[in-house]
Amino acid sequence: MRLSKAFQPTLKEVPAEAQIASHRLMLRAGLVKQTSSGIYAWLPAGLKVLRNIQRIVEEEQDAIGAQEVLMPTLQSAELWKRSGRYDAYGPEMLRIQDRQGRDLLYGPTNEEMITDLFGSSVKSYKELPKMLYQIQWKFRDEVRPRFGVMRGREFLMKDGYSFDLSYEDAVLSYHRIMLSYLRIFQRLGVRAVPMVADTGPIGGELSHEFLVLAPTGESAVFFDSALEGQDWLGRQVDLEDKESLAEFFSSVTEHYAATDEKHDASEWAQVPDERKREGRGIEVGHIFYFGTKYTESMGIEVSGADGSKFAPHMGSYGIGVSRLVGAIIEASHDDDGIIWPDSVAPYWAAILNLRPGDDACDKICDQIYGTDPERFMYDDRSERAGVKFNDADLMGHPWQIIVGPRGAKEGKVELKRRATGERYEVSVEEALAKIGETI
Amino acid sequence: MRLSKAFQPTLKEVPAEAQIASHRLMLRAGLVKQTSSGIYAWLPAGLKVLRNIQRIVEEEQDAIGAQEVLMPTLQSAELWKRSGRYDAYGPEMLRIQDRQGRDLLYGPTNEEMITDLFGSSVKSYKELPKMLYQIQWKFRDEVRPRFGVMRGREFLMKDGYSFDLSYEDAVLSYHRIMLSYLRIFQRLGVRAVPMVADTGPIGGELSHEFLVLAPTGESAVFFDSALEGQDWLGRQVDLEDKESLAEFFSSVTEHYAATDEKHDASEWAQVPDERKREGRGIEVGHIFYFGTKYTESMGIEVSGADGSKFAPHMGSYGIGVSRLVGAIIEASHDDDGIIWPDSVAPYWAAILNLRPGDDACDKICDQIYGTDPERFMYDDRSERAGVKFNDADLMGHPWQIIVGPRGAKEGKVELKRRATGERYEVSVEEALAKIGETI
Repeated sequence: MRLSKAFQPTLKEVPAEAQIASHRLMLRAGLVKQTSSGIYAWLPAGLKVLRNIQRIVEEEQDAIGAQEVLMPTLQSAELWKRSGRYDAYGPEMLRIQDRQGRDLLYGPTNEEMITDLFGSSVKSYKELPKMLYQIQWKFRDEVRPRFGVMRGREFLMKDGYSFDLSYEDAVLSYHRIMLSYLRIFQRLGVRAVPMVADTGPIGGELSHEFLVLAPTGESAVFFDSALEGQDWLGRQVDLEDKESLAEFFSSVTEHYAATDEKHDASEWAQVPDERKREGRGIEVGHIFYFGTKYTESMGIEVSGADGSKFAPHMGSYGIGVSRLVGAIIEASHDDDGIIWPDSVAPYWAAILNLRPGDDACDKICDQIYGTDPERFMYDDRSERAGVKFNDADLMGHPWQIIVGPRGAKEGKVELKRRATGERYEVSVEEALAKIGETI
Repeated sequence: MRLSKAFQPTLKEVPAEAQIASHRLMLRAGLVKQTSSGIYAWLPAGLKVLRNIQRIVEEEQDAIGAQEVLMPTLQSAELWKRSGRYDAYGPEMLRIQDRQGRDLLYGPTNEEMITDLFGSSVKSYKELPKMLYQIQWKFRDEVRPRFGVMRGREFLMKDGYSFDLSYEDAVLSYHRIMLSYLRIFQRLGVRAVPMVADTGPIGGELSHEFLVLAPTGESAVFFDSALEGQDWLGRQVDLEDKESLAEFFSSVTEHYAATDEKHDASEWAQVPDERKREGRGIEVGHIFYFGTKYTESMGIEVSGADGSKFAPHMGSYGIGVSRLVGAIIEASHDDDGIIWPDSVAPYWAAILNLRPGDDACDKICDQIYGTDPERFMYDDRSERAGVKFNDADLMGHPWQIIVGPRGAKEGKVELKRRATGERYEVSVEEALAKIGETI
């Protein structure tokens, strides 16, 4: 994309209501624009980030055998009356009447609908296990929307649901999801630590929140540094093997990690001092086993091997996709702007033409841009070099390819790595090769 | 995907309310499920079709310089009060109050929001032209939803908008869109004919509907056969050249094409008899130039070259993405089921293992499936051959790879082309090569 043509309206002045870095930077860099309180339009560069996150989530969910569906945003109130949650849910649920006077609602989550969908088509234990997920817009009528897309009202969420024959099988689904989530966050380029969370009346230990570490996080977190820097992508786990899954799962959960809500001083004391890590975190995922709560309340049964009916065991698994855009920025920025992880960046690199109109500069820029116009943001504007440097830093492209008249004459460009500030004077071919190595 | 594990609940009994082929076939093949009146959940295979259509639309819109954004589903009523449409838009608009008592609505279209978004960031003629589009769920509270996803209430639509300096420039945008749309429909594997449509109070000739030809279409259509079988993808048009665009555009519009609403008997009489085509069509797209209607009513101005302010000229361009799934089936099915065009099919081929458990059969099936599990639907169920044949025909995969014990022993499979019924006895390699040629 040529920046002269891009719809990416950068702002010089920071809106007063933007209190945290990600909110300020998303507005300044032209990624989103608020259209109503807590409701945002995604501009082209912001949408590319959202799609990159979505693609990684899909690939890793598919890899554990989950199947993607897409449920509508609006749901019938009847469904929620069956589960008993319609009255219980409170004013965060947006309730709607259609022209026929029927009660609808804008889905804040989808346990009821997926349970109904499952129950209307799956009749036999032979069809289990099933894991279904979607990435769809949801609405929660927050009384005080804030922090930009981090606590908006209309938000994009991955919600997944598993259906199993028994508690033992549901545990396997839970283990697979744990692996999938750790892989997702690693690929997104953020450190997200799984922490024990409340299970409510169900009890047990099958509830974890995933928190991205960032100083502006809403929760204080305490964890064992053994959980840092693990390579989940390299971990060999046999998804069909109970032992292999259990071994992997305990290698994660044996290490202490908790938010302040669940912090246990005596367990914490057993973590060696040099491995104690404290900080703050932003919740970006939550996984949860809840047994037969919905299948029973909604009367969903499946035939077992002996012909008797049983209510499948369920879990639900969320990832805040739009929230992650903010969380990634909170975890990865500096005073100059965003520092996109390679995997989610809207463009691989900015091409900064320091003298548009200079033959050598134009030629080199066109040559690089022509290799893949979708992957480069070509700053071809007739602006001062300083403006271009600042905008590239603000937008956070992983690489900057700086093309000035002196170097261009000799076929050289300056390559800058946004995250580290490292600079290299290289040929066009070397620049493209170096960028290729990281993407 | 293995059919034994797929969440694709096929139905044997056709629901009584499904009156047209596409509705019946989408339910029978397990592509969608109705969750409320006129509101559908998309099951995995249906979602794959929707995504394939979406990807083609995006690629062709990007190719003419349009930029993708994503606006929220819910809009503030204030926006629509500014344009004057809030009261004018009848009961098809779903009106909502949030917990603070503010009026929202579920967007049925987005002229107001995009105009506001454009106006809040584009200030100079230098930033024109701009073409923005999105693919987002919309809601129209149809009094009588019917025909499945063809006339649902919550539906997925591509809506695009152009902003130009002048009428002359807006015409160029309109020509580019015409090209983009013809390319999109050709890639989708359907014949969609552009027909002159009403422009309302604006007048002029810059309004076209695109109709997919199908016997169940809601409109009678009359057109010159010169519009059939054109290769728009092979057409060389210089998008930056006014003459080239105009020449292309008149090569389309010089041929008669109209729905019954706009049918003109005297013009029709001038079409040579052997080129007269009559039939029925389903509207899947509508493009429309409407001048400064929204920019003026909403007070959006941009600075011109001489410093004076002007209201940009706009057009809006829709494609019914979810509706297209139904329209494609209406245009491409037979008594046995769906016949997916290669480009939108959820899977390239079904692999029909006629004897699961037979070593030779299993080995060949695994070999083919292993080349790309995402692209093949492997029917590994322990069902009779007849059931497998029927389900594969119903689901409409472009190819069927039939693996029986006799052929398998000699390393042969039977390859069947769904659209034509042609069959080939070939080796595995030949089968994969033949499928590869068409996809």
